[in-house]
Amino acid sequence: MQTPDTEPTTLTDGDVHDLDAWWRAANYLSVGQIYLMGNPLLREPLRAEHIKPRLLGHWGTTPGLNFIYAHLNRAILARDLDMIYIMGPGHGGPGPVAAAWLEGTYSEIYPDISQDESGMRRLFTQFSFPGGIPSHVAPETPGSIHEGGELGYSLSHAYGAAFDNPDLVVAAVIGDGEAETGPLAASWHSNKFVDPRRDGAVLPILHLNGYKIAGPTLLDRIGDDELESLLRGYGHEPIVVSGKDPDYMHRHFAGALDRCLDRITDIQQQARLSGSSDRPSWPMIVLRSPKGWTGPVEVDGLPIEGTWRAHQVPFAQARDDDEHRDILEHWLRSYRPDELFDGNGTPVPDLRTLNPAGPRRMSANPHANGGPAIRDLALPDFRDHAVAVEVHGHDVAESTRILGTFLRDVMRDNPKTFRMVAPDEHNSNRLDDVLDATDRTWNAEILPTDDHLAPDGRVMEILSEHSCQGWLEGYLLTGRHGLFSCYEAFVHIVDSMVNQHAKWLRTTNRIDWRRPIPSLNYLLTSHVWRQDHNGFSHQDPGFIDHVVNKKSDVIRVYLPPDANTLLSVTDHCLRTRQYINVIVAGKQPQPQYLSIDDAIVHCTKGIGIWEWAGTDRDAEPDVVLACAGDVPTMETLAAVEMLHEWFPDLLIRVVNVVDLMRLQDDREHPHGLPDADFDALFTTDTPVVFAYHGYPWLIHRLTYRRHNHDNIHVRGYIEEGTTTTPFDMCVLNRIDRFDLALDVIDRVERLLPVAAYAREHLKNTLIRHRQYIRKHGEDMPEIADWRWRGLDR
Amino acid sequence: MQTPDTEPTTLTDGDVHDLDAWWRAANYLSVGQIYLMGNPLLREPLRAEHIKPRLLGHWGTTPGLNFIYAHLNRAILARDLDMIYIMGPGHGGPGPVAAAWLEGTYSEIYPDISQDESGMRRLFTQFSFPGGIPSHVAPETPGSIHEGGELGYSLSHAYGAAFDNPDLVVAAVIGDGEAETGPLAASWHSNKFVDPRRDGAVLPILHLNGYKIAGPTLLDRIGDDELESLLRGYGHEPIVVSGKDPDYMHRHFAGALDRCLDRITDIQQQARLSGSSDRPSWPMIVLRSPKGWTGPVEVDGLPIEGTWRAHQVPFAQARDDDEHRDILEHWLRSYRPDELFDGNGTPVPDLRTLNPAGPRRMSANPHANGGPAIRDLALPDFRDHAVAVEVHGHDVAESTRILGTFLRDVMRDNPKTFRMVAPDEHNSNRLDDVLDATDRTWNAEILPTDDHLAPDGRVMEILSEHSCQGWLEGYLLTGRHGLFSCYEAFVHIVDSMVNQHAKWLRTTNRIDWRRPIPSLNYLLTSHVWRQDHNGFSHQDPGFIDHVVNKKSDVIRVYLPPDANTLLSVTDHCLRTRQYINVIVAGKQPQPQYLSIDDAIVHCTKGIGIWEWAGTDRDAEPDVVLACAGDVPTMETLAAVEMLHEWFPDLLIRVVNVVDLMRLQDDREHPHGLPDADFDALFTTDTPVVFAYHGYPWLIHRLTYRRHNHDNIHVRGYIEEGTTTTPFDMCVLNRIDRFDLALDVIDRVERLLPVAAYAREHLKNTLIRHRQYIRKHGEDMPEIADWRWRGLDR
Repeated sequence: MQTPDTEPTTLTDGDVHDLDAWWRAANYLSVGQIYLMGNPLLREPLRAEHIKPRLLGHWGTTPGLNFIYAHLNRAILARDLDMIYIMGPGHGGPGPVAAAWLEGTYSEIYPDISQDESGMRRLFTQFSFPGGIPSHVAPETPGSIHEGGELGYSLSHAYGAAFDNPDLVVAAVIGDGEAETGPLAASWHSNKFVDPRRDGAVLPILHLNGYKIAGPTLLDRIGDDELESLLRGYGHEPIVVSGKDPDYMHRHFAGALDRCLDRITDIQQQARLSGSSDRPSWPMIVLRSPKGWTGPVEVDGLPIEGTWRAHQVPFAQARDDDEHRDILEHWLRSYRPDELFDGNGTPVPDLRTLNPAGPRRMSANPHANGGPAIRDLALPDFRDHAVAVEVHGHDVAESTRILGTFLRDVMRDNPKTFRMVAPDEHNSNRLDDVLDATDRTWNAEILPTDDHLAPDGRVMEILSEHSCQGWLEGYLLTGRHGLFSCYEAFVHIVDSMVNQHAKWLRTTNRIDWRRPIPSLNYLLTSHVWRQDHNGFSHQDPGFIDHVVNKKSDVIRVYLPPDANTLLSVTDHCLRTRQYINVIVAGKQPQPQYLSIDDAIVHCTKGIGIWEWAGTDRDAEPDVVLACAGDVPTMETLAAVEMLHEWFPDLLIRVVNVVDLMRLQDDREHPHGLPDADFDALFTTDTPVVFAYHGYPWLIHRLTYRRHNHDNIHVRGYIEEGTTTTPFDMCVLNRIDRFDLALDVIDRVERLLPVAAYAREHLKNTLIRHRQYIRKHGEDMPEIADWRWRGLDR
Repeated sequence: MQTPDTEPTTLTDGDVHDLDAWWRAANYLSVGQIYLMGNPLLREPLRAEHIKPRLLGHWGTTPGLNFIYAHLNRAILARDLDMIYIMGPGHGGPGPVAAAWLEGTYSEIYPDISQDESGMRRLFTQFSFPGGIPSHVAPETPGSIHEGGELGYSLSHAYGAAFDNPDLVVAAVIGDGEAETGPLAASWHSNKFVDPRRDGAVLPILHLNGYKIAGPTLLDRIGDDELESLLRGYGHEPIVVSGKDPDYMHRHFAGALDRCLDRITDIQQQARLSGSSDRPSWPMIVLRSPKGWTGPVEVDGLPIEGTWRAHQVPFAQARDDDEHRDILEHWLRSYRPDELFDGNGTPVPDLRTLNPAGPRRMSANPHANGGPAIRDLALPDFRDHAVAVEVHGHDVAESTRILGTFLRDVMRDNPKTFRMVAPDEHNSNRLDDVLDATDRTWNAEILPTDDHLAPDGRVMEILSEHSCQGWLEGYLLTGRHGLFSCYEAFVHIVDSMVNQHAKWLRTTNRIDWRRPIPSLNYLLTSHVWRQDHNGFSHQDPGFIDHVVNKKSDVIRVYLPPDANTLLSVTDHCLRTRQYINVIVAGKQPQPQYLSIDDAIVHCTKGIGIWEWAGTDRDAEPDVVLACAGDVPTMETLAAVEMLHEWFPDLLIRVVNVVDLMRLQDDREHPHGLPDADFDALFTTDTPVVFAYHGYPWLIHRLTYRRHNHDNIHVRGYIEEGTTTTPFDMCVLNRIDRFDLALDVIDRVERLLPVAAYAREHLKNTLIRHRQYIRKHGEDMPEIADWRWRGLDR
């Protein structure tokens, strides 16, 4: 690799001194956070009671993070950079907290953690302490948009932040442990989605410190040749800085950083002047430094610095073991705190020369707190895109295709603040019209046979759900808006990322200085009921179950049954902040039930009686047929038609659910219905046959406290699937119109004069269906072409 | 890259003819499967009724898969290779089905799909047809261990199959779409975990056909230099074969394949003779060929071959549009079926010369069906590893550390058929003792500071849950055994992989020729209640919720409360086949409740009354305290002690649940309890306070049909967490002993003389706890050191 030995360094001895002092201060404050709860300035020898009883934190990666922080500050000052810092090894939480305190940001946000001795003591004590702050980089950490708990997303977050922020530089440290994860490995290729004319820059800094918790890291052990080859293969020009001696490392890292930033400036200026978007080879740094750098070399006869033993707390008996306590004190004093903090414990003026001013501080950069000027989307009127519904359930449309026309206009009206991501499924999900307003983002080679590709496109497609999710999260966390369209089954690929984002939202809801960020919006289509083509592997509606386990104040789930309800729901979601909105809607042609005005009313309530589809009028019903989801709604209505034909006196109520959380009670979820309202819909004693889009037991989990719960019978997906016809998928899972009608008959048989005869007929029809599809390979026309004909009441 | 132009080819013209004929036959049969339901041999011009009404399948990748299949067959015959074939682009399902039919395997397994015209017609019709076979490579496909629906796992499956199979060569085609996924990107580095002395070889074949569903693929568009650099960085020596002309491609692909196989032989022979395990640069092939190769060049004026339009069915109106039907017929005839099949529709003898014999056929290789000699593990007696429990709940042990001694002996006794995988958490999970029997697998650079690394180690650690899961799946699917230990929260990273494996098991349960494979065993430790260190991001017990949505015949969930129950449960799981066993158990020191004999009895029942912990004796209880999980069990017992002290006359029953599925009824799950048994434990009318390890609503979802469900009150994890003390985690989620006792008081207040006073006292203790931990940073000693003292009854 290009070694910095061949490069001139740009530092004076004074620069080196300043950098080193700042770094020592950050390291001192980091060790203090991990170990101390008293005597923060070492005014007296350390005693047991100064040491925390439970030592919880990660030292190994922290000095490297601090080293880079100091150097980024120098560059920010020298170049007036607008820069944020993503720390992949987020378990190094003490580092950015120390930096924010040194920069003054911490005390501005948390006034009790003042820049003096008492503040320093509280800074130390609160770390990884009950009532204090987490041990990882977290929402509580100023300047962070990246929860450091689960590894793998630093680069995709960094790129998400850089998109459409042309003046931003995102420094992203990638841990060598993190680099082993799949999501991180995939995200290296994000550089093919950057337009240097329009987007900011990401500067990856691969930090090789050699060890994970217990084992070595792959990228540290494949040799320089393979590593360089790999990084060049990812499209980067790597510069390696390797060593341990601080003076050497300061000079060489500064030289490497300057070269990278010069190169970024060149790339951007050239692209912006010439208008050319040719993909450059972006610079990056490989920093090889010991794990636990500057920490104790050896404890109890075992090597610490430079080994996996430095990963967490390098030695654990500092409270009870005098020798360990001596090592700790010696270690702390090695940073020469007396030179760093004055008699009050305040950082000496020299240290502050390395602090950028105001919002240029990475700990106070507004991009890391919802963006400098967070704005709502300019939303076109979704009603202009409505399908005309003169007669309920008569005409047919592809709901997501209709939505595509609305999203096209959203894209057109928000050319710098809205992006869509999809794992190669945008068109498959029938959102093609959006490509009239923009192209797919692509800055690798383009051929004449390609369709709608351009470096400045705004529909981001890569066959990596992880990259889609990471990019979008980074984009939202910096205050912009977006939508992720995905096959329903494969959104499980990002289950764990969704967990972390939900936890971020839940936590920031309790942090008053955090600005609310735009919601994370999912459109799950190509859903379980219409994967008749791809079969069993593509059938899984469990993402809803996954998200509803998260805190109710951040989760919303919508199941619009047709195009106009989908429009209304999507418009609403795009206006919200701090939520995870999950919208499930099919892409196949299907009957349209509600006019746009009816759809708005229905979606506003979130749940309601469809009087036009029931036979109960103002009376108490004999049975309630409830439905949630487009296919279940269609099957329910078809069942109502048959039941009404057989049993014209049966009083059927139809309840449709758009907002799934309405089923819970209002103590459990902000959208929950009070019991009285629930009872008004579902009664307290009438049989309910509920056709639900997903796994049936979720409905039980949401309604088990309701008065009428014992009478609720749910049909849904029970993991029966294969490559078959759409209607047969319903039959396999017994959520089809005939089985629903049979379920009703079973429950109100005593009211039905010809129950036995009807039952026989329905069962025979199912047998005929089976025979028909096996012969013809498609559904019987009267089923496939079913339309709501209206009831003869 | 090294181009094959510089390489000699090894084929005669006759070889080329044979290869091409076999390839044409496979392609013909593939197109037939996608389009035809009649007239399979084109004895007459195609008519509408010969065409399926719903055209469902993927053409684009299929000819490439078939091309490779033909060439692998040539190599198998020439070298007597033991080879299986993993098809990453598994949507190319028609390909391996065609190959299996040509090889005769298909008709052996499915006799109605005979090797003649009527068999061919059925072969065509069944594809992606109701009652037929899926459109993707699936469990139904002979020779496959790789469900092709969800992309990203081909390489890790391939390596899993190759481990400990020294004579096996696994050819793995990686689609260029698949190559964009994170799991695949991470899995390239699997070659650092291969010991050429002991393991088989994986031959990666990166198939660049340039397009995904709608967009281009990254690796096709980064230029040859970057691509070669990338693959070398992954540790491979790539050979590229690029083109379209069949004659050219046959000669050059054969040359490339011979060179790769020669190199593999060299590597293995050298390693096995010399005993050296130095990591070689393994060969691989890059095959650049057009998407939809040999298909129609243009339809309706739009280019098809070589574009994204060839991805699925290249043109859809073949039934109704005469012109399209002509194109189809012309396309099919271009393969010259008259030369390939005789008058009966049987493959001509010439074609069979390329079929390996018997189990050498990749479609019949026993490795792809549970392994050639699937064996149970040789299991040591787990009772030898038991902790002595003289008094219930008195002594303390780390349960997973105890388990580690058992697993060490399992490892020792099964040196070729058992592996453990972990994402860098093996020691963190306290399984260190296993490293006495083996090392961590590692074939990259090793330094003196490293701990227990060796190329022939059997504990596989990489910081990629995806690679861990993929390797283990590949290992199990080829008939060996293993265990995945993982932090509970981060196992969500593989949610979607678990889905696919569960679907594989469910489907193979219905396929009689598939041999049952060893179960997929998870040990989830470092669980939600003891991530007080890492905090909120590491706290998520939702994996249980995720798996119980899958078919009940493949899912088992165990929550052993202590070391001896953990031993008993693990021993059981290691004996099973065709399950996904999820075991959740903590690693921290905790009271031990049951002697090994009691543990065996308790685990065999899966649920039971702990008489020693209750006060109800033989009477009907006033209240039932139920618990599942180690921490909830401890809090429950501590609550019982306090309740008994306050209310000596209160009749408390303690029920402990190890096998979570016992809570369901026996119609829902094979382990489910009949209602009468459930009622005998939980009564039909007594209040139940249930402390559960995970999200509380799961207990409701499992028990909502039970008679006493309305009286069951569940405490569990409600997404309240941070970096705090272990006991405070319980308090935050109200599952602590005091809150449980308060819950009991609320429910049986009428029986309790001093309820108000007790309530006041318990609440005050909680306040004191809060104050104490905020001052001292650790739990009050009487809480942290709690032991079951026994009841004074």
